[in-house]
Amino acid sequence: MSSEIGKALKISVFGQSHGRAIGVVVDGLPAGLRIDEAALYAFMSRRKPGTSRLSTQRREDDRPVFLSGLVDGVTAGSPLCAVIENTDARSGDYADFTDLPRPSHADYTAKMRYGEAVDMRGSGHFSGRLTAPLCIAGGVAKQILERENIYVGAHLLSVENERDESFPLLPTPALFAQVAAKPIPVIDDEAGARMAAAVEAARSEADSVGGVIECAVLGLPAGLGSPLFDGMENRLAAALFGVPAVKGVEFGAGFEAAKMRGSRHNDPYTVEHGRILTAKNDAGGIAGGITTGMPVVFRCAMKPTPSIGKPQRSVRLSTMEPEELTVKGRHDPCVAIRAVPVIEAVAAFTILDILMEENGYGNDRNS
Amino acid sequence: MSSEIGKALKISVFGQSHGRAIGVVVDGLPAGLRIDEAALYAFMSRRKPGTSRLSTQRREDDRPVFLSGLVDGVTAGSPLCAVIENTDARSGDYADFTDLPRPSHADYTAKMRYGEAVDMRGSGHFSGRLTAPLCIAGGVAKQILERENIYVGAHLLSVENERDESFPLLPTPALFAQVAAKPIPVIDDEAGARMAAAVEAARSEADSVGGVIECAVLGLPAGLGSPLFDGMENRLAAALFGVPAVKGVEFGAGFEAAKMRGSRHNDPYTVEHGRILTAKNDAGGIAGGITTGMPVVFRCAMKPTPSIGKPQRSVRLSTMEPEELTVKGRHDPCVAIRAVPVIEAVAAFTILDILMEENGYGNDRNS
Amino acid sequence: MSSEIGKALKISVFGQSHGRAIGVVVDGLPAGLRIDEAALYAFMSRRKPGTSRLSTQRREDDRPVFLSGLVDGVTAGSPLCAVIENTDARSGDYADFTDLPRPSHADYTAKMRYGEAVDMRGSGHFSGRLTAPLCIAGGVAKQILERENIYVGAHLLSVENERDESFPLLPTPALFAQVAAKPIPVIDDEAGARMAAAVEAARSEADSVGGVIECAVLGLPAGLGSPLFDGMENRLAAALFGVPAVKGVEFGAGFEAAKMRGSRHNDPYTVEHGRILTAKNDAGGIAGGITTGMPVVFRCAMKPTPSIGKPQRSVRLSTMEPEELTVKGRHDPCVAIRAVPVIEAVAAFTILDILMEENGYGNDRNS
Amino acid sequence: MSSEIGKALKISVFGQSHGRAIGVVVDGLPAGLRIDEAALYAFMSRRKPGTSRLSTQRREDDRPVFLSGLVDGVTAGSPLCAVIENTDARSGDYADFTDLPRPSHADYTAKMRYGEAVDMRGSGHFSGRLTAPLCIAGGVAKQILERENIYVGAHLLSVENERDESFPLLPTPALFAQVAAKPIPVIDDEAGARMAAAVEAARSEADSVGGVIECAVLGLPAGLGSPLFDGMENRLAAALFGVPAVKGVEFGAGFEAAKMRGSRHNDPYTVEHGRILTAKNDAGGIAGGITTGMPVVFRCAMKPTPSIGKPQRSVRLSTMEPEELTVKGRHDPCVAIRAVPVIEAVAAFTILDILMEENGYGNDRNS
Repeated sequence: MSSEIGKALKISVFGQSHGRAIGVVVDGLPAGLRIDEAALYAFMSRRKPGTSRLSTQRREDDRPVFLSGLVDGVTAGSPLCAVIENTDARSGDYADFTDLPRPSHADYTAKMRYGEAVDMRGSGHFSGRLTAPLCIAGGVAKQILERENIYVGAHLLSVENERDESFPLLPTPALFAQVAAKPIPVIDDEAGARMAAAVEAARSEADSVGGVIECAVLGLPAGLGSPLFDGMENRLAAALFGVPAVKGVEFGAGFEAAKMRGSRHNDPYTVEHGRILTAKNDAGGIAGGITTGMPVVFRCAMKPTPSIGKPQRSVRLSTMEPEELTVKGRHDPCVAIRAVPVIEAVAAFTILDILMEENGYGNDRNS
Repeated sequence: MSSEIGKALKISVFGQSHGRAIGVVVDGLPAGLRIDEAALYAFMSRRKPGTSRLSTQRREDDRPVFLSGLVDGVTAGSPLCAVIENTDARSGDYADFTDLPRPSHADYTAKMRYGEAVDMRGSGHFSGRLTAPLCIAGGVAKQILERENIYVGAHLLSVENERDESFPLLPTPALFAQVAAKPIPVIDDEAGARMAAAVEAARSEADSVGGVIECAVLGLPAGLGSPLFDGMENRLAAALFGVPAVKGVEFGAGFEAAKMRGSRHNDPYTVEHGRILTAKNDAGGIAGGITTGMPVVFRCAMKPTPSIGKPQRSVRLSTMEPEELTVKGRHDPCVAIRAVPVIEAVAAFTILDILMEENGYGNDRNS
Repeated sequence: MSSEIGKALKISVFGQSHGRAIGVVVDGLPAGLRIDEAALYAFMSRRKPGTSRLSTQRREDDRPVFLSGLVDGVTAGSPLCAVIENTDARSGDYADFTDLPRPSHADYTAKMRYGEAVDMRGSGHFSGRLTAPLCIAGGVAKQILERENIYVGAHLLSVENERDESFPLLPTPALFAQVAAKPIPVIDDEAGARMAAAVEAARSEADSVGGVIECAVLGLPAGLGSPLFDGMENRLAAALFGVPAVKGVEFGAGFEAAKMRGSRHNDPYTVEHGRILTAKNDAGGIAGGITTGMPVVFRCAMKPTPSIGKPQRSVRLSTMEPEELTVKGRHDPCVAIRAVPVIEAVAAFTILDILMEENGYGNDRNS
Repeated sequence: MSSEIGKALKISVFGQSHGRAIGVVVDGLPAGLRIDEAALYAFMSRRKPGTSRLSTQRREDDRPVFLSGLVDGVTAGSPLCAVIENTDARSGDYADFTDLPRPSHADYTAKMRYGEAVDMRGSGHFSGRLTAPLCIAGGVAKQILERENIYVGAHLLSVENERDESFPLLPTPALFAQVAAKPIPVIDDEAGARMAAAVEAARSEADSVGGVIECAVLGLPAGLGSPLFDGMENRLAAALFGVPAVKGVEFGAGFEAAKMRGSRHNDPYTVEHGRILTAKNDAGGIAGGITTGMPVVFRCAMKPTPSIGKPQRSVRLSTMEPEELTVKGRHDPCVAIRAVPVIEAVAAFTILDILMEENGYGNDRNS
């Protein structure tokens, strides 16, 4: 009902923060594709916590074990299942929140949805830790896309009021690689330093900050997608809102487009080297739900981490009395930083799903 | 593939701008619900063109005819099919765009997706006219929701740089009704007048403007929705991006949240009359994909109408030579105005679908 | 929930027996395919009632009107909607069955499912008349398949205890055409005559008879389908049980296979003209859910028409007292005869859906 | 695409015969349900191989390990993932079949579908071993259903030409338990002995035999299901054909109905203790796709195990030359015996899925 997505490529995510393991099943991958496990692990390491003071101190190895679907590093045609064992969970840290819910967290809503029995230790199935399986699925998808010269890259566009420059009109895979190698994944390092300072300032005050992630997909052909409910924007947004903390998704000029006139917003068609392009890309590479052939560009608004050390007002549910709450434990002061590869991952498996629908599975065996 | 949406309540939209009729099939409605056809038609009239100089001069009656699913105004249990005949289509107005595509319109992308044979007269299946069937489905859904004291209302939050006030923390159905009755659906009439001036200014320069629509859903219980891929935000966004011209969707504080600290963004829980509320609603009524019980609030960025009278640069596809393009014909200078009820409609049938999953169809026959 | 099927090609059926019209939306067809409307109507005429004493005397023209998706007989890329107006409905004939349900009919179950308000005049959405829209969708699919040299044909294998010969190992399109042209669609005319006699005998006694329909699909490549839940058998069976009166579906040897030893049931592989075949086809052209390249062969068990003129025992629901029931009105004594093209139709759109998933929509525009 | 099924309750099966583990993800279970793991394991043991000479000598422990979704034996609201490690796989036994495919097995079709890279060691994802995860999902579903007084039971109705008696009109849970406790799950032990002799005869000749499984579901309310494509028969058949070796599915009288007259086939309504029943159940508890309130009864035709020790004709694909094939290794002479609990399992999770759609998830938290 809630933890599956995809049509030709189906993703099924499982696990709670404090269960035995978390993982993902990916069904629909063609047989015969070599997966570079080292590259996958390197990709996943970009979301790994504990690498700097700017993220949670919880340590996780997060190296995936493939239970099925992979034989000697090559896809077998059958569903791929990968798991990550939970090794460093301290349930005690989280014990109180089912009765005294953290503001803007899922404690209260999960209880209203599932009842008392829902396992919300460490935020359970709502934990940011569940983004690790998303990165397995997305990391595999990225490798497959790159063989088709399709590249997915993202950067941290802003944190609080500090802002990186935007992607250029035609980003390159090299730019994606440069950005991905940095601890704060930005284009402009000075902006990155200002962002780091903003995060550190929040952290030192037991607070958190939000941010915006910008993502681009290069190499998609024109003519991919559909009008109405199955367009590129619909499919990407439906998946991206699955990443915890995403509260907004916009394509191309997005909300800025609402302030524009048509004469400024419309992207004029041009010809370059015999290929149709647009002179700018306020459409974000999508018109009528269908790709134009320009990079698909979108941005995700990430809210600040709801778990903060400052005292907050809440209500004790068993007594219905107001009560002050202070969240202890290890939390990222800015989830947007670690979410950059997660957004790439979700975009990658969504795009691969759409491409697999376009190409059909019959092409697999002929290539 | 593209024109269906919904799980417990399935919507299937059909029609091209210049075909015989457009319409919608709605499957899954319980039997025995009385539909007020006059109220439905009044709702649909809010998106009807030709009512003021601010919208297209194309005249359409758009009165739906029910082919099935309704007996003497009461739902019959079987799929409801409603159609609107196309009567005022001048194909000649649109003839040239398959070879000389309008910038930021679907002319080029539809051709790349479907090939030469796609019927793009009047923008075909991509036409804003297809929002009329959405309003049929959504208008029916609104009536059903209102019997459960669930209300969906929207207003034009901004046009270009002119901005209405935001919905209050707890909007009322009466406010929704007031706003809906105005030609420019705003809360603050002075803002509405400034917006009208901005639209008129654009129109007089053969240009168009974008806008933002804010929508709220009142009366939802806490505990509705799911984590990950089937949450309130995922479902609503997947549907809303199906409305032509929507380029961004945000919930609660949305992109503004990315500039906030957690201590400011988090919504403290409070108790009022024995009920859990939040003191403010930057979460937009949703945490972890699940409703909090506060109003669900979201905003849609609407791009400016791509069809403008000003000369634009394009490329003649048959020769691959650049060529200037001037769009004639009747077009809204600001689609955001007429899109207000469309956003309500899409929100309404999406919410009803989610509620029907929550409640199950077994409850229908017992109530 | 119930009246849609398909993944790449989506079918949505609407209408009640005594509403204004019945019809179907077919979404996902590629643009640019010419539909031969005369051939479609000829196909549909095979299920038309009133052509002989062996079927109901209700007269229907059943000529479909295309509301969308077709421009000058060519698919437009957008969803195709076709409707048939209801012209000859006598509601009075059916009035009593909501309180005194006909045995083995949907009167009682529909009421338990949908409540009192369900429109069951003429059996409502449960009527055999809803097979006309299935034939529109399937007739279009058949034409598309035939251009790819894929042929779907069926015959009446048995009625009561009278049995036609089975399809040969490799049926031909010519055989399909011969069978389709007969009033009783059989291979062996003598068997057909015996079947007609059996139907007439039942009719003369105000009774009805069941039958078996055998269907074959020629020209499918090997390698189509999937293991587990998305195989050829799963997909075909899920659709075929949607045809009213189908109570069993079997592939290849089917239930006969349960009486065989493996040494007799297994189909030995052979080579002919450089192509892999099997020496016989007890697998019905499917192994592991995937086509072998041999004809896909299956049979549907059709129960006898439940509406019979003989007195039957029922219960008056308002009083919960036993009461005898006699069904008047016009009913087929053997639905299996008219269901032959319906089974072909359902098989055709299911096969086309599976092929479209295999081939992808990206191939449409390149071909 | 192929290994998922379900709407409110989603099942995702993974694993190959010779991979590291096989398993299943079950998403959508309410929180707070206690699962009796001993009872689950007892249920799974009914399909365990190696318990008698009548089944394969391959030994498997098949005890599931729950990676997520279960806390101290109680469902946690999040997806349940259970795995079984593969410990006793001898890949060498199966090495040759990708080039010299076994008749009526998936060796050839899997290769045509997925290409050379598909992992078919031990039949890979097509192995009967994948029915163990089905039994986990179904075993959990059975426990949940039984708390609602819904019981699923099956017996071996026939093997080759030996036949057990049919279920009585109203079977009891006690009868189900009796049958389940027997090594050959039959009602009539003498029939069981004759079946055992038939299996042994086949085994001793290096051959195999088919069989029929009859299954009944007790305790379903009237009014469950839908007409057309989402009825009880459609949903059950779509799932049941996912069990390897199933080649036919029939409900109630099934293929026998095709030989009947309506006056004999129709089930007269009766009243007993103020409840509507039918005097007999040739409808198999379903009319118009919707339950009547009588037991849902269906039968599955199981083909003989395709892997037999007798020499068979095949074709060497690399040379396209005919070649004789002899299958070594450990294979069940009659898969129908061990498939009895598998059919129950698949029926159970399908029924639970349908019930969860009917009841909605909103009822979970209130009960």
